[in-house]
Amino acid sequence: MEPSAKHTALEASGETTRETGIELIVEEPLEIRINGEPFATIMRTPGNEIELAAGFCFTEGIVDKFADILTIAFCADAEDTKNIINVMTPDRGGECEVADPRKSSGRKLESRSSCGLCGVKMLEDIYKRLTPLKDGPQVHAADIVKMQYRMIEKQELQTRTKGSHAVALVRTDGELVVVREDVGRHNALDKAIGYALMRGIDCSNCVAILSGRISFEMAQKSVRAGIPIVAAVSAATALAVELADRLNCTLIGRLRDDDLVVYTHKERVEF
Amino acid sequence: MEPSAKHTALEASGETTRETGIELIVEEPLEIRINGEPFATIMRTPGNEIELAAGFCFTEGIVDKFADILTIAFCADAEDTKNIINVMTPDRGGECEVADPRKSSGRKLESRSSCGLCGVKMLEDIYKRLTPLKDGPQVHAADIVKMQYRMIEKQELQTRTKGSHAVALVRTDGELVVVREDVGRHNALDKAIGYALMRGIDCSNCVAILSGRISFEMAQKSVRAGIPIVAAVSAATALAVELADRLNCTLIGRLRDDDLVVYTHKERVEF
Repeated sequence: MEPSAKHTALEASGETTRETGIELIVEEPLEIRINGEPFATIMRTPGNEIELAAGFCFTEGIVDKFADILTIAFCADAEDTKNIINVMTPDRGGECEVADPRKSSGRKLESRSSCGLCGVKMLEDIYKRLTPLKDGPQVHAADIVKMQYRMIEKQELQTRTKGSHAVALVRTDGELVVVREDVGRHNALDKAIGYALMRGIDCSNCVAILSGRISFEMAQKSVRAGIPIVAAVSAATALAVELADRLNCTLIGRLRDDDLVVYTHKERVEF
Repeated sequence: MEPSAKHTALEASGETTRETGIELIVEEPLEIRINGEPFATIMRTPGNEIELAAGFCFTEGIVDKFADILTIAFCADAEDTKNIINVMTPDRGGECEVADPRKSSGRKLESRSSCGLCGVKMLEDIYKRLTPLKDGPQVHAADIVKMQYRMIEKQELQTRTKGSHAVALVRTDGELVVVREDVGRHNALDKAIGYALMRGIDCSNCVAILSGRISFEMAQKSVRAGIPIVAAVSAATALAVELADRLNCTLIGRLRDDDLVVYTHKERVEF
């Protein structure tokens, strides 16, 4: 499946109109199964599903490290082979039993789109699986601005569709680790974290650059991955700021051109 | 609870920095119970929870009309009285049994943030509860531009926090029905639809103005509410366009100043 789709639309600028070919961001449901059991359905842009599933399972607390995942694979036996992915973990037995979707009621399944508190009901449950980050590293504000420009250059899907979010992981020395785009900002972050996780890349020396806002879930996923500095084009929520403050994570928002706001742990930002 | 919170942050513009008081958008989990049973937890901005629950239950297919809801109320018996709301429907028996959260496992509960496929696994299930919209009405593109300006004027939370989405319902004759703001765009839409639902306002003569993108879920909620024209500042996804095309809904995106893109059913837009 392609991450974008062609469409003919009517473009208008004032009173001038014209039929024109445009590209749309593709959004498709991905069912994530854990040991064959439906666990979550997320609306995502096709591509990098293995990374997405790895990142999702880690940031949502299903596994504590990549080594806890035995296999991740598209379900070849299922009817819809491109939209169902199965993650095998040793905890629940290592055999792949592809679940019969007809046996699983909608209610058992958590459904969400580009987000996920992941079946934990309370914020306390989320805090339990997070550990405070260590102090350091420090990054100059001007370098964070540069990191955002580098991400923008790599947002190919956004350029074409105007409808995708992006997350970049950039080492504090400026080296770009990965950029991932998705219709959902949570998916883009999970894809980027999954990329790092599968390659054993240490995120404690990375800055995450986000295209959207910093919600609680974006902050918790970042802290879970050990990312000490998270910088976003838009604002942070009060709950995200509270979490970052408690767990020693630096949140930066409203990053546009030379302007930015440091919400928490400003000691990591040099000026 | 307040919808915004004060915070001291470091604002930087180039090399100039200053400590300053800012306002953050508040994001808190709201547990929605159906007849006392936990059904979903959504991250929302406090305010208008009754409308949110009414809109959510309707757009997610739990009820087919407002009259199917017996009561909506905060759970006074629960430990957290501000973040749990109970919706009573006759289908499952009319008595209010406040569920004991300790008895309900996290897994049973659908968890999501500002979104919701609402326990239905397949897109087909969603299509089943949607009926194609009737033809008409028509609105001039210049009037849609004006509707967006009217919404922007009313986005008080956004002005203060730079972190909230908004949805406006505007009658095709230009009369503003309601503007709702929330950290989640799905919540803002559910609040606006809930407002209309509770007052018997017919949405078939309304335009929905959205602050964000038009995802599949935003499109399906709008069609479910019978809204014939949906116009958003950002782009629509391929799946949203497919749904709107099939169900006779006009989607307009990338609405900025005088520019816009009509994705589907352009016959409703006059130039």
